[in-house]
Amino acid sequence: MDGYNVAVVGATGAVGTRMIQMLEESELPIKNVKYLASKRSAGKKLKFKDEDIIVEELVPDSFEGIDLALFSAGGGVSKRFAPEAVRRGAVVVDNTSAFRMEQGVPLVVPEVNEDALYEHKGLIANPNCSTIQMVVALEPLRKIYGLKKVIVTTMQAVSGAGNRAIQELHDETKAVLEGKDYEPQILPVSGDKKHYQIAFNPLAQIDVFEEDGYTHEEWKMIHETKKIMNDQDIQVTATCVRVPVAVAHSETVWFELEKSGADVEKIKKILKTAPGVVLEDDPKNQIYPQAVNAEGKKETFVGRVRADEEQANSFHLYCVSDNLLKGAAWNSVQIAERLHALGLMRVPN
Amino acid sequence: MDGYNVAVVGATGAVGTRMIQMLEESELPIKNVKYLASKRSAGKKLKFKDEDIIVEELVPDSFEGIDLALFSAGGGVSKRFAPEAVRRGAVVVDNTSAFRMEQGVPLVVPEVNEDALYEHKGLIANPNCSTIQMVVALEPLRKIYGLKKVIVTTMQAVSGAGNRAIQELHDETKAVLEGKDYEPQILPVSGDKKHYQIAFNPLAQIDVFEEDGYTHEEWKMIHETKKIMNDQDIQVTATCVRVPVAVAHSETVWFELEKSGADVEKIKKILKTAPGVVLEDDPKNQIYPQAVNAEGKKETFVGRVRADEEQANSFHLYCVSDNLLKGAAWNSVQIAERLHALGLMRVPN
Repeated sequence: MDGYNVAVVGATGAVGTRMIQMLEESELPIKNVKYLASKRSAGKKLKFKDEDIIVEELVPDSFEGIDLALFSAGGGVSKRFAPEAVRRGAVVVDNTSAFRMEQGVPLVVPEVNEDALYEHKGLIANPNCSTIQMVVALEPLRKIYGLKKVIVTTMQAVSGAGNRAIQELHDETKAVLEGKDYEPQILPVSGDKKHYQIAFNPLAQIDVFEEDGYTHEEWKMIHETKKIMNDQDIQVTATCVRVPVAVAHSETVWFELEKSGADVEKIKKILKTAPGVVLEDDPKNQIYPQAVNAEGKKETFVGRVRADEEQANSFHLYCVSDNLLKGAAWNSVQIAERLHALGLMRVPN
Repeated sequence: MDGYNVAVVGATGAVGTRMIQMLEESELPIKNVKYLASKRSAGKKLKFKDEDIIVEELVPDSFEGIDLALFSAGGGVSKRFAPEAVRRGAVVVDNTSAFRMEQGVPLVVPEVNEDALYEHKGLIANPNCSTIQMVVALEPLRKIYGLKKVIVTTMQAVSGAGNRAIQELHDETKAVLEGKDYEPQILPVSGDKKHYQIAFNPLAQIDVFEEDGYTHEEWKMIHETKKIMNDQDIQVTATCVRVPVAVAHSETVWFELEKSGADVEKIKKILKTAPGVVLEDDPKNQIYPQAVNAEGKKETFVGRVRADEEQANSFHLYCVSDNLLKGAAWNSVQIAERLHALGLMRVPN
């Protein structure tokens, strides 16, 4: 074969531009790329390697002849256009939450549940950013000891809310430093009623609130983890906080294992060779994961491994990963690479 | 009586200046104030209400004639000079960690364990900032339902590391926004070997590391909570993270109650009238505690109250408080007010 025709939907966004970068770095055989976006962005020029690509307006027929379509243009766009892409024979990797919890749609983190790809019917969902890095860190331990309970607090970067949120953090921080007024318009949730200052001010809201007081982001971490790990009995609970950070999410993860026998040294040894994990855990030398070090990297950085000294089989870890890469663009392209390697890059009949 | 002679040790620091402000606002009868600091700061002029007060160099005889001495000039200064103050008849409220865990030294948060003041021998310790706001939020629930376990993640403001840390956050953030280099020299821990960027970058280290991989800040939250609540059986475990925030700590607190019968509505009702607590919990209207709103206030703001939907008697809350006020200066002056009200403002024979 001479390579795939690949479409990137939402090519001009924070994740879209990283998808292009990940495709450029990928060993996936690519014949042609097509960049799709809203009418507003159509006509813009973006590179693919050395080539100039004109962004086209997304329409159903955009997917004629496309083998692989990577979507990251919001749930509404995926709901409308992903089925059109699949109908035209394109395998879709969708980075939005539109289809994640739909039965029959694989929700995949390659380090955890690559096997789920065999069941795909044309569309594979990419999980929520904050969920991905957590399951990458926990899966190698779950495999050996089982996982009973997880309590996670996230400190999430604003880039998860897109380029306009990055700009708002920048402009607002500058205004605060200069003692000037600034009217927030994006964060915490662009579509919600009120907007608050993120500069020097954590916001305990990511996505909208559910009836039970959890945010939808917290709901995603709970339910996506169970689906990815294929175990509804794992107890997961979460508090998700947006912090004044541009890129890379940091998470404190407390977890209880099913089986006894683990200790800090064993856990560190397992994580040291775990796929997609880089262990950064050397308190004596002040080595622990940091957002600024994780930015631009594909791995999940794990450190601060400690025992809960009062509860058996229970531990802490701290994980940091680039939310735009492993949390979104890289995990999507990695799924595509695995589809290719497993001979699954086709819409089944 | 015509009022107390009050000394503020470390008067020029981040906490010291707030101690002065809290004394100005206090109903404590004050006859005279004396501002003490290192030789470097001696000679500076600071206000007390409308009066100019010259900062004096701290020496043992500074405490002659002093009734009340508030210390916040580092553990070393307290270790050396607090006994000198007590010897000269001054009651000491010490905001450092020097004597907190010493047997016979009350460690007091007035909303929680005011009764411990009756046992003082001249010196009362003010707990760690991140501990104080957590126990203020949990005590009203513990009183009714008992407290079995707490898992806390803190997102702590840099002002906990003093005025130089606030300056570093400011200057470094400005440098990052302007694309300039900046060499961190204070954070995460001024006395530790390495210093890291705090601008747009959470740092999972507050205070130095212990042998078991916990930081000393985490150790303090664990052991001070048990001492303040006077119950060694409460399981407490913590991860403390420094975040790019100037003032006010934010904490995610997961807790399991001893007894059954609590629910989210009951917990909110209890917190609504709890001393020192302001309930800010209205997800439908996007109301939850925020650092920028807590700054300059004496209360602990609590919200995001939710049930752990998979574990009985277990809940989340989110609490935010001004680390320099309730976490330090206000709690110290509040202790002094209670000592006065209870007739305990004297060094026992």
